[in-house]
Amino acid sequence: MAMKMYDLCGEERERRFSPYCWRIKMALAHKGLKADLEACRFVEKSTMAELGGQTFPTLSDGETHVTDSWKIAEYLDQQYPDKPLFAGDESKALSAFFRYWVETQLSLPLLRTVILDIHAHLDEESAAYFRESREQRFGASLEDFAGDSEEAIKQLQAALLPARLTLKSQAFIGGEHPSFADYILFGHFMWARSISDKQLLKSDDTLYAWRERMLDLYQGLGRSATGYDCHGAA
Amino acid sequence: MAMKMYDLCGEERERRFSPYCWRIKMALAHKGLKADLEACRFVEKSTMAELGGQTFPTLSDGETHVTDSWKIAEYLDQQYPDKPLFAGDESKALSAFFRYWVETQLSLPLLRTVILDIHAHLDEESAAYFRESREQRFGASLEDFAGDSEEAIKQLQAALLPARLTLKSQAFIGGEHPSFADYILFGHFMWARSISDKQLLKSDDTLYAWRERMLDLYQGLGRSATGYDCHGAA
Repeated sequence: MAMKMYDLCGEERERRFSPYCWRIKMALAHKGLKADLEACRFVEKSTMAELGGQTFPTLSDGETHVTDSWKIAEYLDQQYPDKPLFAGDESKALSAFFRYWVETQLSLPLLRTVILDIHAHLDEESAAYFRESREQRFGASLEDFAGDSEEAIKQLQAALLPARLTLKSQAFIGGEHPSFADYILFGHFMWARSISDKQLLKSDDTLYAWRERMLDLYQGLGRSATGYDCHGAA
Repeated sequence: MAMKMYDLCGEERERRFSPYCWRIKMALAHKGLKADLEACRFVEKSTMAELGGQTFPTLSDGETHVTDSWKIAEYLDQQYPDKPLFAGDESKALSAFFRYWVETQLSLPLLRTVILDIHAHLDEESAAYFRESREQRFGASLEDFAGDSEEAIKQLQAALLPARLTLKSQAFIGGEHPSFADYILFGHFMWARSISDKQLLKSDDTLYAWRERMLDLYQGLGRSATGYDCHGAA
């Protein structure tokens, strides 16, 4: 039986914007594995929740249900060891650091940049849920939390500096080949691309060229997804 | 012939405070290699410079002279492949990212914290050189650059968040065993420890326990070095 992944979507079912789901879609493609993607709106978590999945993505593989993108990556390498996502224990440990860097340094300025775009692409019921839950979490209206998007983009660009320097001398965060760390960072860019027409990177940024390479991987899996392709125009 | 490493020192020749030199001293110990350490003050670069070494550390191995800690680590793994500093190409690529993270996110608040302590531990001629070159680089007096050290320590503690989270579920940045990434971060803590009595970490910080483990490595190489042992007291 094919694997199944619950994939967050907007009002349009083909608009898939979860950065954590993108990590796993890229990871599955990296390993040459197939999964049926079930598009779920924010307010359609019931089937996934019955399986114990509280967050996107959740992966079902036969009787096994794994939630959380990091745990899913570990599960995939354990169950399907060919074409590993982590070249070894040390790579996995260093990728864990990279993950925390992305989640603590990039998530906030990026969310500020796209939060109103996310809200605008949700069905009515999901939009109400999103507004209420996020306004409670951040203690501010979505509009106040977003603030000045130009300023948030500048913060994002500044926070990206270590990745920018790294990509001056290597094609991918993982070196010559993309690794799970690349999918983690790319997931954040797909989050933006799928939902927002804001330009995040300048075309002379090493990250711009890296993102182009990432968009081309696996027959253009990212590039062909529903979204906006104007990010990073010169 | 034994390898030789040029190691920056203060007025007291046993006070070795260069973070980049500490990376390599730990790397040599990791690999079980010996090098004669030649203590050099800032104004005593002449011998090293004759070998082409403009910065600390410079390593001389027979007729080969390598400068820059990253290049030295690569050289050591290439020339002495036993007990690698990088478990493989992907680990090395991810370690490069870690290096840039340390150098762009931690160096500045840490330097602000300890710059006056560095100055206070230099011989008169080196202190004059240090003041002039750094005041030119930063466009401010050492005192103005340092500013409020409590505030700089808070900035440092905030910047360390991704490492702190990583060390909640693994003993070292490299996983179960220390890797070159650990030596990179530890070098920065040895920079402070060798020259300053300021307390950088709280004792309930996962980084505090990690630093204790690092200080114990290789018969307490870091712990027994000339410096201050009061960092991180509760």
